[in-house]
Amino acid sequence: METISESIEKFADKIEKASSMGLKLELSQKQFDRIFVIGMGASGFMGDLLKAYLAELGSRIEVIPIKDYNIPEFMDSRSLVFVVSYSGNTEETIYAYKLAKVKAGRAIAVTSGGKLEKECMSSGTPVIKIPEGMKPRAAFPYLFFPVVNTLINSGLIKAEVNYRSIISALRIMGLREKADELSEKMLTKTPLIYASSRFYPVALRWKQAINENANTHAFCNILPEMNHNEIMAFAKETDDFMAVMLGDEADFSKIRKRISITEDITRKSCETTEIVLKGDDYLTKVFSAIYIGDLTSYLLAQKYNISPDDTQIIEGIKDKLKKTG
Amino acid sequence: METISESIEKFADKIEKASSMGLKLELSQKQFDRIFVIGMGASGFMGDLLKAYLAELGSRIEVIPIKDYNIPEFMDSRSLVFVVSYSGNTEETIYAYKLAKVKAGRAIAVTSGGKLEKECMSSGTPVIKIPEGMKPRAAFPYLFFPVVNTLINSGLIKAEVNYRSIISALRIMGLREKADELSEKMLTKTPLIYASSRFYPVALRWKQAINENANTHAFCNILPEMNHNEIMAFAKETDDFMAVMLGDEADFSKIRKRISITEDITRKSCETTEIVLKGDDYLTKVFSAIYIGDLTSYLLAQKYNISPDDTQIIEGIKDKLKKTG
Repeated sequence: METISESIEKFADKIEKASSMGLKLELSQKQFDRIFVIGMGASGFMGDLLKAYLAELGSRIEVIPIKDYNIPEFMDSRSLVFVVSYSGNTEETIYAYKLAKVKAGRAIAVTSGGKLEKECMSSGTPVIKIPEGMKPRAAFPYLFFPVVNTLINSGLIKAEVNYRSIISALRIMGLREKADELSEKMLTKTPLIYASSRFYPVALRWKQAINENANTHAFCNILPEMNHNEIMAFAKETDDFMAVMLGDEADFSKIRKRISITEDITRKSCETTEIVLKGDDYLTKVFSAIYIGDLTSYLLAQKYNISPDDTQIIEGIKDKLKKTG
Repeated sequence: METISESIEKFADKIEKASSMGLKLELSQKQFDRIFVIGMGASGFMGDLLKAYLAELGSRIEVIPIKDYNIPEFMDSRSLVFVVSYSGNTEETIYAYKLAKVKAGRAIAVTSGGKLEKECMSSGTPVIKIPEGMKPRAAFPYLFFPVVNTLINSGLIKAEVNYRSIISALRIMGLREKADELSEKMLTKTPLIYASSRFYPVALRWKQAINENANTHAFCNILPEMNHNEIMAFAKETDDFMAVMLGDEADFSKIRKRISITEDITRKSCETTEIVLKGDDYLTKVFSAIYIGDLTSYLLAQKYNISPDDTQIIEGIKDKLKKTG
């Protein structure tokens, strides 16, 4: 099993390898107005990014992440479903897949194998098979890009992914220094990560990476919504929290103003840092920011003397559920 | 302006008054496959509950809460839009309404007046006018039930709201004692509230009430998703957090097992409490749990010596945005 440390080093290589993966669906007259992404945790996170990406492209296709056993009543023959489970053994995902294959127009699985692959083979569902031997969160490029490529190859979205730009952004000098500085500031604090809806998936990935790698509470929210309730919790001064604002020049002007006003408020309450997203295009910004978050959570784990590879609690829950049936 | 203390006392009366409000749309051949709820903060929260409620009813109509300036590309003539702003002056909501009225099949506003009412009158959008003089979060029954009644009256959903059951559940003795005990346990802690997707709106309302009334950080998440990442943060023992599990006997069996396994884990890390949802039907459970959360946040504010009526920070953001244009 690849360690988290190795997986961070290989992040760019994985994007390169994933860039040529994907299917081409025979669509004939089939139209889809909804794409469902069924998946939990690091696999399901793919759906959050796909949703933001298609909105950014101005696509008319809705993306709905499903992170539960059940599927909505409105899933129908105009629904395309991606079933994403890195291990192929995620209980909720397999359960939801069995419901979805009856209702959806088309299902496609993304997995390294497991029960899901077997289920799909017996019911004729195409499988995008990805390499095994990683932690699910380390497999992220293999979960995302093959799905994007399938949508492009099948004519469902019009987009061109600039892999060169993404990969070179990850190899820029100084990202590790930035992450080291950030993780130093985060020590003993609960990070609260805020972004516009365009970059909410980045905030969510940071939260989850800090949870999983550094066994530390972290939370995220969207601007402007957090301005209507969560902001009130910054009325008090505290050493316990730290606000991280993910800002982008291309964010809507009123969101940019809100970020700046919000920082003025959080700064009076607690340590506050803004990360300016960098890159020539949306996905370059997203992936380099995800990479900084992964690095930060890893370095934070080191500082806490925690092994980022230990996910015993999550495995323990799966075992207990199996035992109780 | 009604105080939060008064608004909590009048919660049941408001439900009674709201029970007869709503419109009947002339639908002719018009069908809707999506309902958008545009609104921020306490007004937008209505959309989260409507989404969970329609899923609970098994409705084939999708509900999409919009908490942003922008609206999705896939909003179209088969979309019914509720524009919800208690004050009628919410910047994001008015902005999104102007975009939505061009794209949607039908729009309906829910407001006490303000600019939104004027905008709607000049563009022929029906307005469900609700009483003024409250904090938006205190107006919640007036935001939710008139919309539900409009859907029922127009034949868009089949449901019967048991107002008697909801109102008598709120008048049960002992809710204040329960809230008092809970707020005592919450003192100096950051509450983390967990529920199934069926009751996620309750967890969200608790979070927001604690933020707004008690100026305290609080966060919420859904089971099973939190079992895949957030749970890892409970690997350490801490006095800083408190886990609140909202459980219901009618939750899916595997969710019930997950709640019990999750409690075993969080209990080793921090103070953990389970709230068992009570009531004869879904909405009774939801509203009595919301009421307990509102009371708890109010009593917590008292214990912190904080005025729950002070939302100066939120107003300050609005003023600053106005000034910068």
